[in-house]
Amino acid sequence: MARDAGETKRRLLEAATSEFAERGIAGARVDRIAAAASANKALIYSYFGNKEDLFDAVFNALVVDTVRDVPIDPDDLPGYAGRLFDRSQTHPEILRLALWHSLERGGAGSLPDAVVTANAEKVAAIAQAQEAGRISRRFPAGELLVLVVGIATLGATEFAPAPDPAVRRRTIIEAVELLTKDET
Amino acid sequence: MARDAGETKRRLLEAATSEFAERGIAGARVDRIAAAASANKALIYSYFGNKEDLFDAVFNALVVDTVRDVPIDPDDLPGYAGRLFDRSQTHPEILRLALWHSLERGGAGSLPDAVVTANAEKVAAIAQAQEAGRISRRFPAGELLVLVVGIATLGATEFAPAPDPAVRRRTIIEAVELLTKDET
Repeated sequence: MARDAGETKRRLLEAATSEFAERGIAGARVDRIAAAASANKALIYSYFGNKEDLFDAVFNALVVDTVRDVPIDPDDLPGYAGRLFDRSQTHPEILRLALWHSLERGGAGSLPDAVVTANAEKVAAIAQAQEAGRISRRFPAGELLVLVVGIATLGATEFAPAPDPAVRRRTIIEAVELLTKDET
Repeated sequence: MARDAGETKRRLLEAATSEFAERGIAGARVDRIAAAASANKALIYSYFGNKEDLFDAVFNALVVDTVRDVPIDPDDLPGYAGRLFDRSQTHPEILRLALWHSLERGGAGSLPDAVVTANAEKVAAIAQAQEAGRISRRFPAGELLVLVVGIATLGATEFAPAPDPAVRRRTIIEAVELLTKDET
């Protein structure tokens, strides 16, 4: 019984991920998610709360998975950027969810807890490497993180189409190398 | 009479810009746009076509204005990036429209004509400066444009909040300097 509940939750989260990635928060329909997961709509409310809560559950789960599978390496930020790019190619839904959240729920203090925690840990890791003199101190740690993640996810929208993913990957890695190497 | 029509069109475009920036394409309501512009809803269809056509008219107008007010200078890409950042601060609606378009209408060949034309001209200007040896040839021209515009618009979403716009502006300009200066 408990096992079935876990399996139903998993199916609901999977269906919700597709629905939110495709249509955003306002456009998503709880009925469609329940149907795609072959589950009763009432279970969504009982397991997750309302539609916004379900979105948060989906988004938090994706952030936790990404941080686990693509951990930051402050001593190899070009490599980290390359791996984040690879992840954005195999898991485009996380960037779509981030953009929907930003457009529909944006504003100070609206970021999911998992994002806030993950960012603080990444900034701390970069600051430590800077203090130890292992990477350039040219940029404040928080600004360098924004540059690295921003460059790694170029191509997430149609406005920066990559003619060839291999070319874009090389661009990303080379750009982050230039931004992190020590002044000489 | 022709003057009134021009004035009504202007009011409709202004109201449509706010509505689409706030709610996206699916979420926008033509009734609300007509009411905000104190115009008859039927005029929207007669002047612009359907809701998608109205979105395209709004977005094209913003792109044309931006290219006119913030022209690219291939010999000063850091300064260009700084001016694009300033523009994104004073006119946040263009980035919101670009993100909505990307999420709701994205896909190959879906970019508005004004964007395609503006991008092609910018890439040509960068390629020319590279061929003349005035800026680094490290990156293909199209990739360099993606980097410059991507970095200039960091902070467009809540995921890259700038603690202080002056700090972010300095980050952007310094990053583009590093990416465009010649190999030494």
